[in-house]
Amino acid sequence: MNVKPSDRASIRRTNLALVLRLLRDGGPRSRAKIADETGLPRPTITSLVAELIELGLIREGDSERDGSVGRPGLPVELDGTTVYGLGIEINVDYLAAVILDLRGSVTFERRIALDVRAAGVRLVLDQTAQLIREAAESVRERGHLVGAVLAAPGNVDTATGVVGYAPNIGWTRVRAIDELRHRLGPQAPALLLENDAKLGALAEYLVAAASDIHDLIYVTGETGVGGGIIIGGQLHRGAGGFAGEIGHMPLSPGGLPCACGRRGCWETMVGLGALLSLAADPEDPVHDPSLDVESRLVDLRRRADAGDPRTVSALARIADDLALGVALLADVLNPRAVVLGGWFAAFADHLLTPVREGVARRVMAPDAGGCEVLPSTLGFTAPARGGACLALDAVYRDPGDLR
Amino acid sequence: MNVKPSDRASIRRTNLALVLRLLRDGGPRSRAKIADETGLPRPTITSLVAELIELGLIREGDSERDGSVGRPGLPVELDGTTVYGLGIEINVDYLAAVILDLRGSVTFERRIALDVRAAGVRLVLDQTAQLIREAAESVRERGHLVGAVLAAPGNVDTATGVVGYAPNIGWTRVRAIDELRHRLGPQAPALLLENDAKLGALAEYLVAAASDIHDLIYVTGETGVGGGIIIGGQLHRGAGGFAGEIGHMPLSPGGLPCACGRRGCWETMVGLGALLSLAADPEDPVHDPSLDVESRLVDLRRRADAGDPRTVSALARIADDLALGVALLADVLNPRAVVLGGWFAAFADHLLTPVREGVARRVMAPDAGGCEVLPSTLGFTAPARGGACLALDAVYRDPGDLR
Repeated sequence: MNVKPSDRASIRRTNLALVLRLLRDGGPRSRAKIADETGLPRPTITSLVAELIELGLIREGDSERDGSVGRPGLPVELDGTTVYGLGIEINVDYLAAVILDLRGSVTFERRIALDVRAAGVRLVLDQTAQLIREAAESVRERGHLVGAVLAAPGNVDTATGVVGYAPNIGWTRVRAIDELRHRLGPQAPALLLENDAKLGALAEYLVAAASDIHDLIYVTGETGVGGGIIIGGQLHRGAGGFAGEIGHMPLSPGGLPCACGRRGCWETMVGLGALLSLAADPEDPVHDPSLDVESRLVDLRRRADAGDPRTVSALARIADDLALGVALLADVLNPRAVVLGGWFAAFADHLLTPVREGVARRVMAPDAGGCEVLPSTLGFTAPARGGACLALDAVYRDPGDLR
Repeated sequence: MNVKPSDRASIRRTNLALVLRLLRDGGPRSRAKIADETGLPRPTITSLVAELIELGLIREGDSERDGSVGRPGLPVELDGTTVYGLGIEINVDYLAAVILDLRGSVTFERRIALDVRAAGVRLVLDQTAQLIREAAESVRERGHLVGAVLAAPGNVDTATGVVGYAPNIGWTRVRAIDELRHRLGPQAPALLLENDAKLGALAEYLVAAASDIHDLIYVTGETGVGGGIIIGGQLHRGAGGFAGEIGHMPLSPGGLPCACGRRGCWETMVGLGALLSLAADPEDPVHDPSLDVESRLVDLRRRADAGDPRTVSALARIADDLALGVALLADVLNPRAVVLGGWFAAFADHLLTPVREGVARRVMAPDAGGCEVLPSTLGFTAPARGGACLALDAVYRDPGDLR
């Protein structure tokens, strides 16, 4: 086979990415070990490692044992101090931002309570742009922000950066990315848009992969109920990028009205609104959208922990309806795990046991088809964190692109 | 890189499979063209082609133009006369068998009306074994039956060959493959078990792939409603092999009793039983399980075509409920197509328009997320045909294994 020069350049870039991902997934290791594991010749590895060091993506690790650098036996590792990815989430009750370094550590985290529907598109985008500025500022002196991904609670067109339809924040055809670029001017980082639950699923997958779980559905309870599907370690976007729309499954025909205009969608049964209205009267402060959602949930949790009958019975009813939809999804997709995020995670100790029992009872396959129901450990930060992961993913796919 | 002898043998087998699949997917072509397309050296292709010819899997194509054989410019093509795959389906009302040759042409097809639940496990397995014998006999003098795959309407353990739970035929923990092997004795072909709708999806995918559709959900209406999911051209089996269990989605809480013991499952709304009971009184001959299901459906079709109000209104109601579940699945998975099989396909000209309208109206993404609703063109033979495909797949994955 003749290899053309253009192919050679492309093979080199592929190999740079291979080495970088090996260090991410397997941790620090020597050039000799990398050569063994990749099957690439040692001189090639030495040259690839040199280029990754020059790009600022990896560094010589602990060399205490003999004090010298550059020896093939010494470990190299990801350098967490040079490139960063930003995730920003727009949700019903808040804006959130998370910056991750290349090693996956959080270097910036911020959440602002905001009644997004009431504030209107313009003000929300103003505040989002301001949040991006602040986040970018936090790493300006330390390194390079490779990109930012915006998470929106609805269907999105990733190619054009348009939020198509996000009923819970009242957005229809909002050119979110163009508007943010306009506000940020030449200082704008590379900006992408994705659905919030898909990004949450990506963030959860990084956690689950450590337990060898590579097929999962992330189900997040916010005002709406969102879903993200990981199959074989890959985000399942669907043929048009719309997969994971689980909040409007028609599970209660003739039930409560939904923001989408129909009745009885799953999110009317298990969304934050269902919890609040089952657990508290309208004038109760837990309904106040100007208060941060997490503090309102802490209030409800306190009541549940104290055994308040109304709160306890609201949670029991929701656990039942949550199991109904989770079992349906487990029947259709037979994942290794369903990860419950958002408010479901905040009430995991109340919900998890009855949901697991309900799922085991309902799923047609024996033992729920091997599907575990797990609480998210990332809470409300999952989508923003997933956005930061996706921004960094560009580096892992093609580190040579940083030049 | 050093390539060990064992690696070389394995690379050769991989390359044999590569060439064979290229001829399947791309049609007849010359050795020179194969070399170009695979990037493998011409002498390697010449040797691989010679081995595939020796294995009886491919042959020199049309050589009329100069009468000689073996020239690099002459096309080679799949040989449809040497190896065969058998699919057998056990369903509520019938047993079916299909044999395909390597080119995907049907060389044997048979369906036997049988009330499987009433007949009992033993008699059904006796008759299935007899059907396998007849099918195998049909190719005995012509070539080699590489394997047989049994399709069952329920969840199955492919590793042990046990039908776990198939409520519509009343089977629980039936060791189907062992029992068939026992009945067939040393003459038994290699036997595997798979869920019927998954096999149907495989068969449908071969049709859909020609229209560049690589993500689809196959939804088949029989007594039960089964599903098979193809993602990126691959059958999605799920973490435990149970994916595609769509018949028991709880879409009508408190609705009609289901064979699974619950109420209101989707199959009580759109399965064959729903059609029959909505369209005809119990004493009507269309309810007689001793008559072949296809002839009973022909009877009902005649009524629908003649505008019989009861039949027409039954179909309208079912179209509505079919759209409900199809839209849910399209929201969750966002496939490029949903293919309707079984009785839905037999009534496609009555169902398709209202189902498409209902799906477009219900799916959250614009234009149903790009998802088309298509009728199966394979009808009731899809699972048996998919079984035959899967049996042949072993040859496509590792042709060297035929030695």
